[in-house]
Amino acid sequence: MSLVEKNFTVETKITPLKIKRDRLLVLDQLALPTQSEWIECLDEKDVARVIKEMNVRGAPAIGIAAAYGFYLAIWSLSQTQKKISETSLQRIKKTLDASRPTAVNLFWATSQMYEHALNWLKQNPTAVKRKDYTGLLLQLYEQAIAIHDDDRNRCLRMNQIAADYILKNFPKEKYRVLTHCNTGALATGGIGTALGLVRVLHALGKIEMVYADETRPYLQGARLTAYELWKEKIPATLTVDSQAGYLMKKGLIDFVVVGADRITRRGDVANKIGTYALSVLAKEHNIPFFVAAPLSTFDSSIEKGEEIPIEERAAKEVLFVGEKQIAPKINVINYSFDVTQSENINAIFNEREVVQ
Amino acid sequence: MSLVEKNFTVETKITPLKIKRDRLLVLDQLALPTQSEWIECLDEKDVARVIKEMNVRGAPAIGIAAAYGFYLAIWSLSQTQKKISETSLQRIKKTLDASRPTAVNLFWATSQMYEHALNWLKQNPTAVKRKDYTGLLLQLYEQAIAIHDDDRNRCLRMNQIAADYILKNFPKEKYRVLTHCNTGALATGGIGTALGLVRVLHALGKIEMVYADETRPYLQGARLTAYELWKEKIPATLTVDSQAGYLMKKGLIDFVVVGADRITRRGDVANKIGTYALSVLAKEHNIPFFVAAPLSTFDSSIEKGEEIPIEERAAKEVLFVGEKQIAPKINVINYSFDVTQSENINAIFNEREVVQ
Repeated sequence: MSLVEKNFTVETKITPLKIKRDRLLVLDQLALPTQSEWIECLDEKDVARVIKEMNVRGAPAIGIAAAYGFYLAIWSLSQTQKKISETSLQRIKKTLDASRPTAVNLFWATSQMYEHALNWLKQNPTAVKRKDYTGLLLQLYEQAIAIHDDDRNRCLRMNQIAADYILKNFPKEKYRVLTHCNTGALATGGIGTALGLVRVLHALGKIEMVYADETRPYLQGARLTAYELWKEKIPATLTVDSQAGYLMKKGLIDFVVVGADRITRRGDVANKIGTYALSVLAKEHNIPFFVAAPLSTFDSSIEKGEEIPIEERAAKEVLFVGEKQIAPKINVINYSFDVTQSENINAIFNEREVVQ
Repeated sequence: MSLVEKNFTVETKITPLKIKRDRLLVLDQLALPTQSEWIECLDEKDVARVIKEMNVRGAPAIGIAAAYGFYLAIWSLSQTQKKISETSLQRIKKTLDASRPTAVNLFWATSQMYEHALNWLKQNPTAVKRKDYTGLLLQLYEQAIAIHDDDRNRCLRMNQIAADYILKNFPKEKYRVLTHCNTGALATGGIGTALGLVRVLHALGKIEMVYADETRPYLQGARLTAYELWKEKIPATLTVDSQAGYLMKKGLIDFVVVGADRITRRGDVANKIGTYALSVLAKEHNIPFFVAAPLSTFDSSIEKGEEIPIEERAAKEVLFVGEKQIAPKINVINYSFDVTQSENINAIFNEREVVQ
């Protein structure tokens, strides 16, 4: 019986977000891995700030945080004697949306929250008049939890499908996996996308070693992926990005799995800088190269990878590590993402199917 | 007329070492690029320490520093009333040789200095009796300068040959060059090996852009190569190592040139980690891949790259940047070098010829 049929379940204790009745606790990913600190957010402004400052990152995690931020905005308003109107809802949504102007998941989450809130206001004029927002709060809390649960379920299903595929098509006693950037619990509402596959295989006793690229310049692999693997005692080894090719040459890698930021109609994938080079190196060494990404990542409006606009980020990310300057202030080229053509990818896993 | 025939000359003002009558000034490469500090060495112990601590690095530069250290040892002894004997020479050589036990250039330089000193002692018994070491000092000073000059000339000749080859076989208005690690003036007695080629082409007005890989984990590209290029106003752009493949895909690189730590009979090259991946990426994009390295790098005792022992270095290099911890203390794999097979290399330049 397949993992999908069994609904084989894996959980993680790592979460970037903990919701309480009156506050959201956000794990400060800028302080990881040396410190594990929680930031308290009491309203939408607090949540917008932690998104903007990148204390929380990863498209799905940002969407979930924004949903909770919407709920907290209403909670904190309900504690005053102020009236909650359609204008209040617009203001809340605007504050949250402005925190990361390119994040599709964020807009999607705040729109859902907004619609639910607006409907409730329209359908409960008496309660609104009494300023009794209990019903609204319950509904929004439920809705935010549902958005979180939905992402958790998508991560799990995607990787039941992915693991079924790998176990069937690339059977092996144990796997040595290379991954790039952070695509785990810290970036999502559940076990993660690409790192979720590692968790499923590990739960099955099928992981020999996970090689985590440190992922310069922002070091998401060193700071976050290494932290997740270390915390959950999954066998893990950290490596500088430029060493991946040599590890493949030495026969240490069975497959590569990465996440995605955007996927075009023909299956070209935009993902963290360095992904394209890994795909070429994997091809050279006949190592399967996989992508795990939710359906929300598929952009049917674009045919080819060349059409995806690639953000260039600040030179500072490369010239400094924390406060430490590591290079003279010369010109820097710092693409945030690169594009891997479909031909270099063996399969893409999402929560519905395996795309080959 | 070729550059070799013209003896086309390029100089650099950057030097890791400045010798004075009574001291050696060593540019502290650990403080670069943010501070430019000179460490004063008064005897062989001081010089051994700066080699050990890596204030000076690069095989040729280490050899030259050791030669100067030998001279300074005799200078400082001559300032006391102590007798200088064969035992003194053995002690000096031992101190210097122990500073970097794997450095072939270092032993070669100290052996030369030792032989010269011993011969002088044997041939000048009257002066030795009078404790008049003026003749010995002059001879050792001259010999150390000769070792330095010899390396300077090798760097220049190698890159006259290299530039002649490239201008003839890959003619282009201007070149966009990718390089890795530091192979420049800071590592040698002259213009450098691979970075020396950049200097020659720049002096001819043929450099459009040099892309310098930052070269994790030790960041020689960010700290040292970027510094050399910035200092000499050669058009330069710093890039994280994992971005090299994407820059090639975007058509931004005309050729790659790197140095070498060891070259086997069949032309396999051990060089800084990340070199092998660059060679695969260059091949994928039909970009010529070159190596520039002096004859002293060729090891005729070894046929194949697989026979070269590859040093694994401390996890700390990857887990920390300076004092800043960037990852939890998990397992790290940190090969100092990798091996690129001859088939991935278009040509190797040395001070005698182009090896294809």
